[in-house]
Order: sequence, then C-alpha cells, then structure tokens
Amino acid sequence: MASPLWVAAAVAWEAGKPLVIEEVEVAPPQKMEVRLKILFTSLCHTDMYFWDPKGQNPLFPRILGHEGGGIVESVGEGVTELAPGDHVLPVFTGECKECAHCKSEDSNMCELLCVNSDRGGMIHDGKSRFSSNGKPIYHFLGTSTFSEYTVVHVGCAAKINPRAPLDKVCVLSCGISTGFGATVNVAKPERGSTVAVFGLGAVGLAAAEGARVSGASRIIGVDMNPNKFQLAKQFGVTECVNPKDHNKPVQEVLAEMTNGGVDRSIECTGHIDAMISAFECVHDGWGVAVLVGVPPNDAVFKTNPLNFLNERTLKGSCFGNYKPRSDIPGVVEKYMNKELELDKFITHQVPFSEINKAFDYMLKGECIRCIIRMEH
Amino acid sequence: MASPLWVAAAVAWEAGKPLVIEEVEVAPPQKMEVRLKILFTSLCHTDMYFWDPKGQNPLFPRILGHEGGGIVESVGEGVTELAPGDHVLPVFTGECKECAHCKSEDSNMCELLCVNSDRGGMIHDGKSRFSSNGKPIYHFLGTSTFSEYTVVHVGCAAKINPRAPLDKVCVLSCGISTGFGATVNVAKPERGSTVAVFGLGAVGLAAAEGARVSGASRIIGVDMNPNKFQLAKQFGVTECVNPKDHNKPVQEVLAEMTNGGVDRSIECTGHIDAMISAFECVHDGWGVAVLVGVPPNDAVFKTNPLNFLNERTLKGSCFGNYKPRSDIPGVVEKYMNKELELDKFITHQVPFSEINKAFDYMLKGECIRCIIRMEH
Ligand SMILES: NC(=O)c1ccc[n+]([C@@H]2O[C@H](COP(=O)([O-])OP(=O)(O)OC[C@H]3O[C@@H](n4cnc5c(N)ncnc54)[C@H](O)[C@@H]3O)[C@@H](O)[C@H]2O)c1
Ligand SMILES: NC(=O)c1ccc[n+]([C@@H]2O[C@H](COP(=O)([O-])OP(=O)(O)OC[C@H]3O[C@@H](n4cnc5c(N)ncnc54)[C@H](O)[C@@H]3O)[C@@H](O)[C@H]2O)c1
Ligand SMILES: [Zn+2]
Ligand SMILES: [Zn+2]
Ligand SMILES: [Zn+2]
Ligand SMILES: [Zn+2]
Repeated sequence: MASPLWVAAAVAWEAGKPLVIEEVEVAPPQKMEVRLKILFTSLCHTDMYFWDPKGQNPLFPRILGHEGGGIVESVGEGVTELAPGDHVLPVFTGECKECAHCKSEDSNMCELLCVNSDRGGMIHDGKSRFSSNGKPIYHFLGTSTFSEYTVVHVGCAAKINPRAPLDKVCVLSCGISTGFGATVNVAKPERGSTVAVFGLGAVGLAAAEGARVSGASRIIGVDMNPNKFQLAKQFGVTECVNPKDHNKPVQEVLAEMTNGGVDRSIECTGHIDAMISAFECVHDGWGVAVLVGVPPNDAVFKTNPLNFLNERTLKGSCFGNYKPRSDIPGVVEKYMNKELELDKFITHQVPFSEINKAFDYMLKGECIRCIIRMEH
Repeated sequence: MASPLWVAAAVAWEAGKPLVIEEVEVAPPQKMEVRLKILFTSLCHTDMYFWDPKGQNPLFPRILGHEGGGIVESVGEGVTELAPGDHVLPVFTGECKECAHCKSEDSNMCELLCVNSDRGGMIHDGKSRFSSNGKPIYHFLGTSTFSEYTVVHVGCAAKINPRAPLDKVCVLSCGISTGFGATVNVAKPERGSTVAVFGLGAVGLAAAEGARVSGASRIIGVDMNPNKFQLAKQFGVTECVNPKDHNKPVQEVLAEMTNGGVDRSIECTGHIDAMISAFECVHDGWGVAVLVGVPPNDAVFKTNPLNFLNERTLKGSCFGNYKPRSDIPGVVEKYMNKELELDKFITHQVPFSEINKAFDYMLKGECIRCIIRMEH
C-alpha cells in the first residue's frame, strides 16, 4: 500500500486569479485508481473555461489541467492493466470497457467515466485525493495534471509506447486527438475531397491535420480572427475565409467557392452560428458536418429540415470518438511513424514555476499549445 | 419514329375536384425519352398533396400519378438502355448516370433528374407530351402514371425483371422503397437493435418492414392515430406509442422504454414535432435518426446542439437513397426472393374507371395502397 506524497501543485484558489504553486498532499490511489507522476502537461481552452470567472461551475480550490503525460507511480486495489513504470496519458473522458458504450463500436461515451466537469472528487468514494493543510482540493475532469503527482481512475489512463516522447505526445490527451479524430473517425473525408474547418484554434488545426492526412485536396479554414490564417497554412489549410469579409452568410460563400458545398465540415468554435453554418455549407447528397465545439448550455441549433432531406448528415463528436484506452496508444504510434505531425502544434514551453505564463499566451491568442515542464 | 397515341387518362382539371377520365393525345417520345404503356398504378399521398386545394403549386390541368408499372412501347432518339417490351417502373426522381450525384456512392439526388414538383413539362424542351384538343396538359413528377400511356425521361425508368408481377411491384416506385430504403440504406439498424418509426402510413410501415428484415428485436411504432396500431403489428411493429397518451414529450417516453433511447429512428410523418422527437429519442453515443417526411416549407428544426455532441447522428433521405435505375431492379429481386413482403401493403384495388375511389379510401385513412388496374 502506497503512502501519501507531498508534492508541488498549481492550485486555482479563485476564478480568474493566477494559480499558486504550493505543496499539497496526494493520497494513495484507492480501488481501481492509479497515482501518476506527471512529467509534462499543457494548457487547453477547457482549463481556461473553468478557471474563468464567467465559467459555469465554480468549484474552488481546484487543481486544473487535463492534457498531460506521465508515469505510473503506484496502483490501487484491483488494478491489473497498469503497473508502476508504465507510461500513460491521462484522459478527461474514460473507458471502463464494461458498459454498453464501451462495448459499442460507435460510442466512446462510457457510462461510468464519460467526461463530467461538475465532479470534484473520485468516482470510488466521491472524495478528493488532494489536500492542503487537511482541507480537500477539488479534482478537475478526473485528471488534474497541474500537479507533480495526481490520482486518476484506471479507465482514464491510456498506456502508451514508453519510447514516445511525453513532452510531445502529451498534447494527444485532449485537443489534438479531439480535432484529428473528429476528421478521421467521424467526418472521414475521402482522398481528393474538400473540407471546411470552422475555428482555427488547436482543435480546428488538428481537424485540418486530419484532413491533410486523409488526402483532402482543399482545406478551407474559416475564422473570425484573421491572425489565425498565416499559421493555418502550415496545417495544410489551402484557403481561408473570414465571415466578416462578406455580406452574406458564410455557408453561401463556401457553396459558391465549391460548386454547391463542401464534402465535409468540422466545427471547432463552440459558437452556435458557426455550428449552423458548418452544417448548411456541406453539399447536398453526400455532405457530412461534425460538431466539436462545446456551446453554451442555452444554445439552440436551428435549420430548415429540408437541409436534411437533401441528404446532408449532421453528427457531433466527443474526444474525436476515440476510446481513450483502446485507441490512443495507436494515435501515439501514428506520431512515432510520422503519419501525424505534433511538433507544429507546440508553439511555447515554460517550466512549471511559470505556469501562469501559459495562461497569458493563450489569452493573447498567441499560442496553439504551451508545454509545461514539471521537472526543473 | 413513333406516332401520337390517343389514350384514356385521368385528368385533374382543378384542385380537389374528381379526376376526369378522357381521351388525351400522347406525343411520341423525344430525345432520351421513352413512352410507356402503364398496366398498374397506385395512389400515393404525394398525389393527394398536389391535387389538394391546399397544395402549393397549382399546375392544372395535370395528369397525376407516380407509382406505377408498365412496358416500354417506343423509345426516342439516343435511348440505348431500353427497348420496346422492357418492363419498367417509372420513378419520380431520376438517375442520369453522368452527374456528380449519380457518380457518388452516397447520393441519389441526380443533378439533372432529381425530383422537381414544379416542373410541368419534359426536360428536353420544357414542353408537355400530353394534350387535349390541342391544349397541353401538365406532367407530374416526370411520371404521370394516371394514363394508359405516358412519356418519361429514360433516366426515370427502372428496367426490372419481366417475371415480376407489375400489380405488386408497382408500389416500389415510390412509398415502399422510400420507407424500406430509409431503414436499410440509411438508418442501417443492426440485428437485435431497437428501432422507432414515427408515422404508420405506407412509408412508415415500409420503414418498419425494413427494420423487421434487418432483424431489429424491438420496433416501436409512434402515431397520433390509434387506428393505425392494429395493422402495424402485421409489419413487425412490436409496441405502439401514441404521443397523445402521455403528458411528457414522446422522446422521453421512448427513452424510458428503452434504457436511454432507441438505436435508430425513422420519421415518416412530415410534421416538424415528430422530426424533432425522432431525433431526440435516439440513444447518445450511437443513435441515428433519419428524416423522410416532407415538411412544410417554413418548418424549422430546433434542438440543443449538445444532442449532437453526445454523438447522435441526424440524416435525411429521398427515395430511401436508392438510385432508381441502378438499385430498384435489385429491390424487385428481393420481392421475388421473398426477402421483402409487398402484398400486405396492398389493401385495395380498383379499375381505372373508378380511380376517384382510391382518393376516397386514402382520405378516409382506410388504405395503405390501392392498386389501380389500367386494363379493363
Ligand atoms: N468535443 C470535444 O471533445 C472537445 C474537446 C476539446 C475542446 N472542445 C471544444 O472545441 C472548441 C475549440 O477549442 P480550441 O481549443 O481550438 O479553441 P480556440 O478558442 O483556440 O479556437 C476557437 C477559434 O474559433 C474562432 N471562432 C469563434 N467564433 C467563430 C465563428 N462564429 N466562426 C468562425 N470562427 C470562429 C476563434 O477566432 C478561434 O480562433 C471549443 O469550443 C472547445 O470547448 C471540444
Ligand atoms: N423523402 C421521400 O423521398 C418521400 C417519398 C414519399 C413520401 N414522403 C413523405 O413521407 C411522409 C409519409 O408518407 P405516407 O404516405 O406514409 O403518409 P401518411 O399520411 O399515410 O402517414 C403519415 C402518418 O403520420 C402520422 N402522424 C402525423 N403527425 C404525427 C406526429 N406528430 N407524430 C406521430 N405520427 C404522426 C399520421 O397519423 C399518419 O398515420 C409524408 O410526409 C410524405 O410526403 C417522402
Ligand atoms: Zn464504459
Ligand atoms: Zn482540453
Ligand atoms: Zn445524375
Ligand atoms: Zn409517392
């Protein structure tokens, strides 16, 4: 039985206030849990979203962070699939391998471990494994990677090739897999097809990378922020459209550019207007649109139902439809085999002590991914 | 070169008024057209819709009818795929075999010949091949089967097995293929799955037949008219739900009956409420809903986009996604091989002289399909 550890963690004490690096106690892993030593983590917009004062559920103090890479330090009761020393990526949505979703070929929305941002404790007992001076600190998305050590459910840790560089593949634990998978697993563009990507953040650029790898001949990036267009070219985006440059709906602009509509579109903005445009811009007969962005709770998707009868398809995707444990090791292999580029997503690096800089870079819209090095 | 023919046709002179059987002149088929001797035809709701005074485009006088079976009498210039004597089903939506849609595996929305209810003449010259006392009578859906002879574009005539009984397989030229195909080609339920069918008219019952043939273990019929439930059992429907019997949305009722939602749903009503319910009642993770009903032009489909992000899929289908010429001969073979039952859809029969009775049966909601025999 492992003992508690005292480690450095970046604690979010209050919405919108800089994280504070301090010593916290990390309890041993309980039944079906593993304790991980995090080596690298990166900042994703979802961390910002739950840190932002406008975010929806103010669970504080909390240890944020859900993109990361680490090594198993100890395992709790019942864990047989992982052992100390294994290299893993913690994932914000899990895979129990037992439920109807895990057994379905089509779903990754595990009944037990599916993403739940309201949960601040572990599934086993509802309690936190983090504490400071005896007071609990909440977990975040079941991962809390902004800590030298963290405890996760075994179903939320994907065991990967130990030769994979964790400072690179850690970005696969959220945004890049989400966008890449939305294209290759859900939109599935054919070689030579035309793909529109709405939103050129990390998720959208990963969706574009998926289109490039799939052999799309035209990849049209759509963003309201023209600063995104230069960088997007490195991700295979062949043309860029700013809806603000046109006085008609962007779906009409795209239809004109593509002789009736794009073959596939992937929405990576979280804005309802973009969701509707992303659907309505696909070609009748065969077009498929995939929604990835997380909308505000009260958003309403509206369209003329004839757009469906004209044989358009609309889907949505969580984590690129990857099953974390079954599929992510294979995505890591794609990187190892140079079938998927990750380095270009990593625009910044900071030591753990400067984690708040990562927030600044993202707020300024300057970075795609900033890697945070845990070791000094 | 063929000559004009003088034949009996049922002319709709005015919206809502009984059809009048009288002699009309049928011109010879022009370039890429064929003239057919119709042996059997049946009445579909779409005929009623364009005959009804509330229908949207009052093109009169017109020869309605678009479900039928016949024999090629003569062919126009350039026709090589059909010859006099061939047995064919005319289809309201065509297949040119040349356009991007016809070449796509996913679409049947032929650019040249896709269903167009506003068109009253032939594509070649915009003119009608029907006249009475020198005045043109409009075509309907490119088929106009309520006539002893009709002229159709070669792309709208599916050549079928001459041994197939035309008095049965004629119903495959619209409603039954539409519903059956929506299930087997688009919704694609797996063996053992649960399927909901909204609307238990001919199209919905054919969708249920598709679910039965696919091995669905539960087929839940949803209709506002409880008179439909008895008959539905013959089509493999295992349970029936009347939304009026519940004081919560029917999608919630279905979710409770099915532990979270049905695997597939097919909407065959044309009502926007049913479309929304049909989408929202499918299971997250893997559920697929298919819209088939034709809504009013001003209908708006509204839903919370999270329903998509939870990995539900929404599609629509025209003519069951069958390509008329490439696929319908195979559906006829399914009937010949007893893999698909058609006889149970045929509840009534009348001679051509009593065609107005078929309208009465349908108006009273008494019949699924009424076959109209052209020969005395
Ligand atoms: N479904 C999932 O599993 C999953 C996982 C991770 C992230 N996400 C979501 O994906 C979305 C994108 O994440 P990100 O990290 O790339 O965000 P980001 O903020 O870096 O990028 C979003 C981009 O969209 C652009 N944009 C905003 N409104 C637009 C509009 N109407 N039209 C065109 N472009 C518009 C912005 O200018 C920005 O460049 C977010 O909503 C995030 O919550 C979903
Ligand atoms: N997409 C295509 O290619 C295509 C082809 C043919 C027909 N259609 C359409 O399919 C639909 C069905 O055709 P049909 O001939 O079977 O019609 P029908 O009128 O015989 O059957 C429709 C059924 O839906 C029921 N209904 C109406 N509103 C409902 C609701 N809110 N909830 C549940 N049930 C409801 C009615 O009681 C009726 O039993 C029509 O809209 C028709 O225009 C589409
Ligand atoms: Zn599971
Ligand atoms: Zn993320
Ligand atoms: Zn065509
Ligand atoms: Zn019809």
